[in-house]
Amino acid sequence: MPVNLSAPNPADLHPVPGVLLGIAEAGVRKPNRKDVLVVQLDEGASVSGVFTQNRFCAAPVQICREHLAAGLGIRAILVNTGNANAGTGEDGLMRAKSTCIALAQYLDLAPEQILPFSTGVIMESLPHDRIKAGLPTALADARADNWGRAAEAIMTTDTLPKAFSAQIQLGGATVTVTGISKGAGMIRPNMATMLGFMATDANVHPSLLAQLAKDLADASFNRITIDGDTSTNDSFVVIATHKAAHAQITALDSADGQALKAAMLSVAQKLAQAIVRDGEGATKFITVRVEGGKTSEECRLAAYSIAHSPLVKTAFFASDPNLGRILAAVGYAGITDLDQTGIDLFLDDVHVVVNGGRNPTYREEDGQRVMKQSEITVRVGLGRGTAADTVWTCDFSHEYVSINADYRS
Amino acid sequence: MPVNLSAPNPADLHPVPGVLLGIAEAGVRKPNRKDVLVVQLDEGASVSGVFTQNRFCAAPVQICREHLAAGLGIRAILVNTGNANAGTGEDGLMRAKSTCIALAQYLDLAPEQILPFSTGVIMESLPHDRIKAGLPTALADARADNWGRAAEAIMTTDTLPKAFSAQIQLGGATVTVTGISKGAGMIRPNMATMLGFMATDANVHPSLLAQLAKDLADASFNRITIDGDTSTNDSFVVIATHKAAHAQITALDSADGQALKAAMLSVAQKLAQAIVRDGEGATKFITVRVEGGKTSEECRLAAYSIAHSPLVKTAFFASDPNLGRILAAVGYAGITDLDQTGIDLFLDDVHVVVNGGRNPTYREEDGQRVMKQSEITVRVGLGRGTAADTVWTCDFSHEYVSINADYRS
Repeated sequence: MPVNLSAPNPADLHPVPGVLLGIAEAGVRKPNRKDVLVVQLDEGASVSGVFTQNRFCAAPVQICREHLAAGLGIRAILVNTGNANAGTGEDGLMRAKSTCIALAQYLDLAPEQILPFSTGVIMESLPHDRIKAGLPTALADARADNWGRAAEAIMTTDTLPKAFSAQIQLGGATVTVTGISKGAGMIRPNMATMLGFMATDANVHPSLLAQLAKDLADASFNRITIDGDTSTNDSFVVIATHKAAHAQITALDSADGQALKAAMLSVAQKLAQAIVRDGEGATKFITVRVEGGKTSEECRLAAYSIAHSPLVKTAFFASDPNLGRILAAVGYAGITDLDQTGIDLFLDDVHVVVNGGRNPTYREEDGQRVMKQSEITVRVGLGRGTAADTVWTCDFSHEYVSINADYRS
Repeated sequence: MPVNLSAPNPADLHPVPGVLLGIAEAGVRKPNRKDVLVVQLDEGASVSGVFTQNRFCAAPVQICREHLAAGLGIRAILVNTGNANAGTGEDGLMRAKSTCIALAQYLDLAPEQILPFSTGVIMESLPHDRIKAGLPTALADARADNWGRAAEAIMTTDTLPKAFSAQIQLGGATVTVTGISKGAGMIRPNMATMLGFMATDANVHPSLLAQLAKDLADASFNRITIDGDTSTNDSFVVIATHKAAHAQITALDSADGQALKAAMLSVAQKLAQAIVRDGEGATKFITVRVEGGKTSEECRLAAYSIAHSPLVKTAFFASDPNLGRILAAVGYAGITDLDQTGIDLFLDDVHVVVNGGRNPTYREEDGQRVMKQSEITVRVGLGRGTAADTVWTCDFSHEYVSINADYRS
């Protein structure tokens, strides 16, 4: 059961001028499910992406990097679910390329103008013929108001589609930001999540898009973890169609640049947090905030150490304020000169640990009250500086084991 | 259910001349269970220990370091289970010290000649009065052939006591090595495991003991992981009573030094592996061997990445050869210049991946056959050098979640 997440209302998902989406049921892995998505972009759109840092990156990720580097202008995105096309060697590269060639022929483009994405089971051959056979259906389905169905077409173990949208006013023009994401397991993004796609019609200078994509990922998808497993297919793509009628944004730190970035970040964070809320077996949404560090890097280390600890995650599942497990995780985070006597720990507003020991005024029933909530903030003070960082995660339940023990069967 | 592990036969546990062990039921956390152990050492024994690198190390660990540094000669070890005395601040230090003072008075020693150890729940006050009240019983119980009951007295979530023994001949004398360990969760030792104690009567020069303890830990307890959680209380202690009638060993690389080290390592590895075999919820014992690395450090990184992945561990639980998860874990291990086309993967004798892609001759039923075994070796070739390293771990089951969701209740 997702934690405080519901399916998007299609009426809330604003179309982005210059972007059409179409889906198909191609039978990639299972019959009768939406499993192919084609996104078409008007000429002139700018596209930037950040991709998994997993050295075992999937064939489509390798091809995305090549096609972005070719510089011909990306005009379409092709996504399949049901098969990750990772751990598939040279053959996997050829199969992915063949789907780009097929789509390019339908759209009268060069194959290098297509970005391919795959998600699903690793180390099985991509059924490229079935994907190619599904392309005419996906192209015939192309519509601007298809974001909700597009979110459905990229799901794997997700229980709900994930799509969010925002609109702001810039120089008298309405600017739209809409995005979709998928992912529920193998989630500890490193540069990006399983799959996230965002588009805006903002007229932002193309040279700013790469920085924007990186900044957005770093403050959203790169701050979530479900099981600590960085996927082979993580990809986050930002699209700007430049259709909105406002003065071009030429710097991200301008007033308009900041307004756009804030709107895009709010959508990116909702998309990233939706993945955690729909985390495999998740029953609780946990915000881990570490403050008082010398650097944000060491705060992040401690936050991930807490967020990855199976002992901490099972304690949250049990609503058991067994909070020593959090201290232990801070202790082994790799901050080699950490002084335990400087540590504070809060569960929401409850001050549990002071100076590295149990707070004399802490009462078990106060911890218990917070642990029973579906949304919990763990706040750790390291007491050695002013840096901070935040990570979002979920608990670890029987259901996680069931889902991942049975995934392929 | 432990994996291929049974309770030790007391007759197989050879007494170590110069070592007496006594236990008591002190009611530290629950009534009617052995929970206090006192080990007495004859004058002249050498003791060395390696301790957790967790910065949130427990009060007894801090006191052990102080007492070893005091150099008065360690004459007794006091262990309690049921309470870890970690995350307890200054008050925890005072409580641990007070148990050392009490035991020292009974034995007419200085408190600095006692090493205290605690294991159990974190962040609760040590019931030092109950432990002190149990000391007379433990002292009255002192016997040389008490290793089996000592192993029982240090258990927490362990389902079986862990004790092993070996004897070798050195210069015509019989030399004994006997050890006990405990631990089943919060296991990713960093310098040592939850608790491990080994004693030998070998006449090894006292100056060699620290190196010996470190070498043994690095090749045994420091190569196991259950859940990746490095404990606050990890301690591994090596005792030499020097009672055996052979010429003193003055170098570990001498023939006798190597023979002793080999015997001690075999006991240490059995003790460490027993912890994995009794891992919380474990149904399989997994050896992860990574070869062909540039350095053993990078092999270890990859091996731990595999051994910690919840996705890999749940696939082992399900006997599902979903082996792409292993490739993904290698890919995110942090070897930044890893070339995926050099990777090989074997499950026991089954060659699954060649050159980073599925081996054309690999058949799913072969992988399935190995995955169903209770003992599995995962062997990864990195294809970039000659270094190697090995880590031992277990799978991840529903039972792990149940145990850790309910631990305190």
